[in-house]
Amino acid sequence: MTDLQIASSIQPKHIKEIASKLSIQEDQLEYYGSDKAKLPLDLIDEKSVNNGNLVLVTAITPTPAGEGKTTTSIGLGDALSHIGKKTVTVLREPSLGPVFGIKGGAAGGGYSQVIPMVDINLHFTGDFHAIEKANNLLAALIDNNIQSKTKSIGIDPRTVIWKRCMDMNDRGLRKIVAALGGKSGGVPRETGFNITAASEIMALLCLCRDMNDLQEKCGNIYVADTWEGKPVYAKDLHAQGAMAVLLKDAIKPNLVQTLEGNPAIIHGGPFANIAQGTNSILATKMGLSLSDYVVTEAGFGSDLGAEKFLNIKCRMANLSPKAVVLVATIRALKYHGGKNIKELTNEDVDALEKGLPNLERHISSLRSFRLPIVVSINAFSSDTDAEKKFLFDYCEKNNIPVALSYGWAEGGKGCVDLANKVAAAVEGCTQKFSPTYELTDDIRTKMEKICRTIYGAENVILSNKANRQLKQFEAMGYGNLPVCIAKTQKSLSDDEKRLGRPENFDIHIREFEIATGAGFIVPIAGNILRMPGLPATPSANHIKMDANGDITGLF
Amino acid sequence: MTDLQIASSIQPKHIKEIASKLSIQEDQLEYYGSDKAKLPLDLIDEKSVNNGNLVLVTAITPTPAGEGKTTTSIGLGDALSHIGKKTVTVLREPSLGPVFGIKGGAAGGGYSQVIPMVDINLHFTGDFHAIEKANNLLAALIDNNIQSKTKSIGIDPRTVIWKRCMDMNDRGLRKIVAALGGKSGGVPRETGFNITAASEIMALLCLCRDMNDLQEKCGNIYVADTWEGKPVYAKDLHAQGAMAVLLKDAIKPNLVQTLEGNPAIIHGGPFANIAQGTNSILATKMGLSLSDYVVTEAGFGSDLGAEKFLNIKCRMANLSPKAVVLVATIRALKYHGGKNIKELTNEDVDALEKGLPNLERHISSLRSFRLPIVVSINAFSSDTDAEKKFLFDYCEKNNIPVALSYGWAEGGKGCVDLANKVAAAVEGCTQKFSPTYELTDDIRTKMEKICRTIYGAENVILSNKANRQLKQFEAMGYGNLPVCIAKTQKSLSDDEKRLGRPENFDIHIREFEIATGAGFIVPIAGNILRMPGLPATPSANHIKMDANGDITGLF
Repeated sequence: MTDLQIASSIQPKHIKEIASKLSIQEDQLEYYGSDKAKLPLDLIDEKSVNNGNLVLVTAITPTPAGEGKTTTSIGLGDALSHIGKKTVTVLREPSLGPVFGIKGGAAGGGYSQVIPMVDINLHFTGDFHAIEKANNLLAALIDNNIQSKTKSIGIDPRTVIWKRCMDMNDRGLRKIVAALGGKSGGVPRETGFNITAASEIMALLCLCRDMNDLQEKCGNIYVADTWEGKPVYAKDLHAQGAMAVLLKDAIKPNLVQTLEGNPAIIHGGPFANIAQGTNSILATKMGLSLSDYVVTEAGFGSDLGAEKFLNIKCRMANLSPKAVVLVATIRALKYHGGKNIKELTNEDVDALEKGLPNLERHISSLRSFRLPIVVSINAFSSDTDAEKKFLFDYCEKNNIPVALSYGWAEGGKGCVDLANKVAAAVEGCTQKFSPTYELTDDIRTKMEKICRTIYGAENVILSNKANRQLKQFEAMGYGNLPVCIAKTQKSLSDDEKRLGRPENFDIHIREFEIATGAGFIVPIAGNILRMPGLPATPSANHIKMDANGDITGLF
Repeated sequence: MTDLQIASSIQPKHIKEIASKLSIQEDQLEYYGSDKAKLPLDLIDEKSVNNGNLVLVTAITPTPAGEGKTTTSIGLGDALSHIGKKTVTVLREPSLGPVFGIKGGAAGGGYSQVIPMVDINLHFTGDFHAIEKANNLLAALIDNNIQSKTKSIGIDPRTVIWKRCMDMNDRGLRKIVAALGGKSGGVPRETGFNITAASEIMALLCLCRDMNDLQEKCGNIYVADTWEGKPVYAKDLHAQGAMAVLLKDAIKPNLVQTLEGNPAIIHGGPFANIAQGTNSILATKMGLSLSDYVVTEAGFGSDLGAEKFLNIKCRMANLSPKAVVLVATIRALKYHGGKNIKELTNEDVDALEKGLPNLERHISSLRSFRLPIVVSINAFSSDTDAEKKFLFDYCEKNNIPVALSYGWAEGGKGCVDLANKVAAAVEGCTQKFSPTYELTDDIRTKMEKICRTIYGAENVILSNKANRQLKQFEAMGYGNLPVCIAKTQKSLSDDEKRLGRPENFDIHIREFEIATGAGFIVPIAGNILRMPGLPATPSANHIKMDANGDITGLF
């Protein structure tokens, strides 16, 4: 059965039933149909947040074999409910664009899914659309001001860094020349579109404390320079009020359910390379306010997602997880061990052993945060006993709790062992995480600490441009922002071909970007695609809807 | 009080109460919050549709003074309820883009509004966003196919007529060069964005019968030519299934309420120049299925909105109104009589008399459809007794029912006289409307009949390009489509400076466009802006949200 067939085989409970499990009154819900609802921000209770048990799910370095971080998160959440822990799984919202490129949704898989999965993967409650509009209103205001004879604030059109965005895999929009057509069309300039998940609005919405803070963060976005070289912020264009109004509903977390009818909150979906790669602070706090356990995940491997989750999001929100689940698969480790994608179903303990250093590196990186770690082996039918034994032996030898999880095939009951080990870890955790760097460190020091402690790199090498920018940002007073390194997810290094555990490498920072609204500096290591394209045969070609509204070919 | 203050002063009823007035069960509603809901298409009942009483609200030629067509529609709907007629007001969805340009919403005014007015004017239930995504997915698939080495269907990039769209007043997107950046960015070409209301997807969604028909219409969109000069349709890119899936909720009409708690359905909002300018067929049929009276409106003056409403929408849907309300204001007629906007509050029967031929022309145009007409004078406090008497005398002399309406100041009770006259007209109507042309007429004949009968023009003059295109479209087999003339709304002629009742003029068709998905041919008379810009001081600058979420400066 496909994910879509499994998801469609289960009749979702009315969302008010899910809400009642969390003691939310019906009149506090803003319904979106009978299976989705927005939650008002006043359900957040800071005392419960502080007493809650936050569990972060992260992973080894991603491979084409798939690791199943979201599937594990959902399975673990359901399993914690099985063992009597009141739990909410808190996830990111999927991006629409990729749905029409490569088949596959982003709402879990098999029997560990959140539903309604079609809606969640399409428009959901419109959050991405609202972010897009706020982003693009700011862009329109910039070009409109450049065009104005009487109200110009002197923006140099060559310096505009603010791009438009669209939640669509559309390479044709990556780089454009806009405002053509003569005087009435505006002042022509080079620009482009990001996919919506890569918009700074997405990042700042996920980092804001409340509506006021959201408005202020919108105002603080750095968009361009004047002809005199002074920075221009969104607030100089009086844009933040209208942007916040466009985001008044998008700021509210969304309640849905797992296939097993347990509550899940899905909210926000920033990229994990050029942004923090995790759901909103408000959603995490909402989950902690409404339950005893929150299971959440962060994008890509622990070098990107977990590092940013902790050093950026948790630090800003004064949150600290009590356990970190590191997801690995035997298939993916064999891939890291040098096998190609077609060979992964053959037993190969040698390849597994060769791939193990990737897992080891992620474990040692995570240990630097001084949090309990549980390794979760996401089981595949091709895994052999010898392979499993090898991996278990390694973990036991190193004193790391490990569990096989069968979330995909069995849902929550396939993750009970994992849940018990996670609960034990949580109960044993008595301290907050140790950040990798201090905010008072200078920007270069912050980067070096991340690259050495988390990636295992030697040095950080800055291009001339990056050096110039670093000085500029420090002179502008942004030296105390956290850093959000944009790096390939496919390797711990900045070279996507280096699998396993790369050693003796440097990280090369080509340039910086700065997200003064969201509040971080982005050192860019390599080329990061902010607007993906479609493959030669996009999955859109196979999607059909019949007269009953039944969809095929979507997932 | 501002419209927003009035709208905010009234606590909306729960939408299930509104639904129950229409005998809709609670479990048939798809809630969007407590004050908005989508209605499932199976509530449409063709027998009720045929027995229902449809009332079209149209207007004289628009002026900067404002006519108040939407306000009158809402006031009339409420008034029909006052006099015991079970009524639903069925309106278009406002476009988001203009909200940030010039202050003012599009959900009625004063005490004749639909609520929740802020939501209706912003994201509402996401229909425009979904249309945007379907439109832009098709665009991405076109450029992706042009880019593909292996799957190319041979699209000549110079011939692509399909544009992207965005619901934002953003002149910088009107004309762009896209797909720059070298091989990975695609094949560069000139293109641009329309505002979403101008997308053919909007037009075809509003003309479709059901999901299947929607999918088929999406497939029939003509997007480009091949290098060999053959037409390429969306279905050649296998786009229609994915597009339909994106529109699966947008196809459903939205239930809201008037300030007086009467049901209103708001659905679809195509432009009234390059498209049909009226809400969806499905919404109109839904209203007729659920009530005895449906009051609906069509964009701009009767030359654009009513003509297309009848000849395009009603003909396709086999609908026929039983009365047409022609909205005029004394201020607007004085403007047509040559007064400038600042002089309109002074009594001036002479100017009114000079402007009257505009009203006369709309009356005689509407009479060609053989439907009962009621003139509604939307009252302003500056109207004097002498002016009102003059206008009433004219209507009585010409045997046209006329009512003063006070919807803005008084809501439904200010429109009871109008409602009684409309009900009398409806009860006296025994025939279906006579279309202006037959579908079997050739394209030139169709245009000539509209221009002569409706606009009062002499001849239709085609440019060389238009002549060529006309032959091409007839050769392609599209000669039997209805025509949808794109013309300025500010004059009955194609010259926006000719107010009142222009005479001795020709209509000049510069070129054609063809909407093979929606199913009409668009002769273009003059320059039609499909992507507006923002003014020098956009209203976005004044919008603020306070800590309680209260919005100011929006309307």
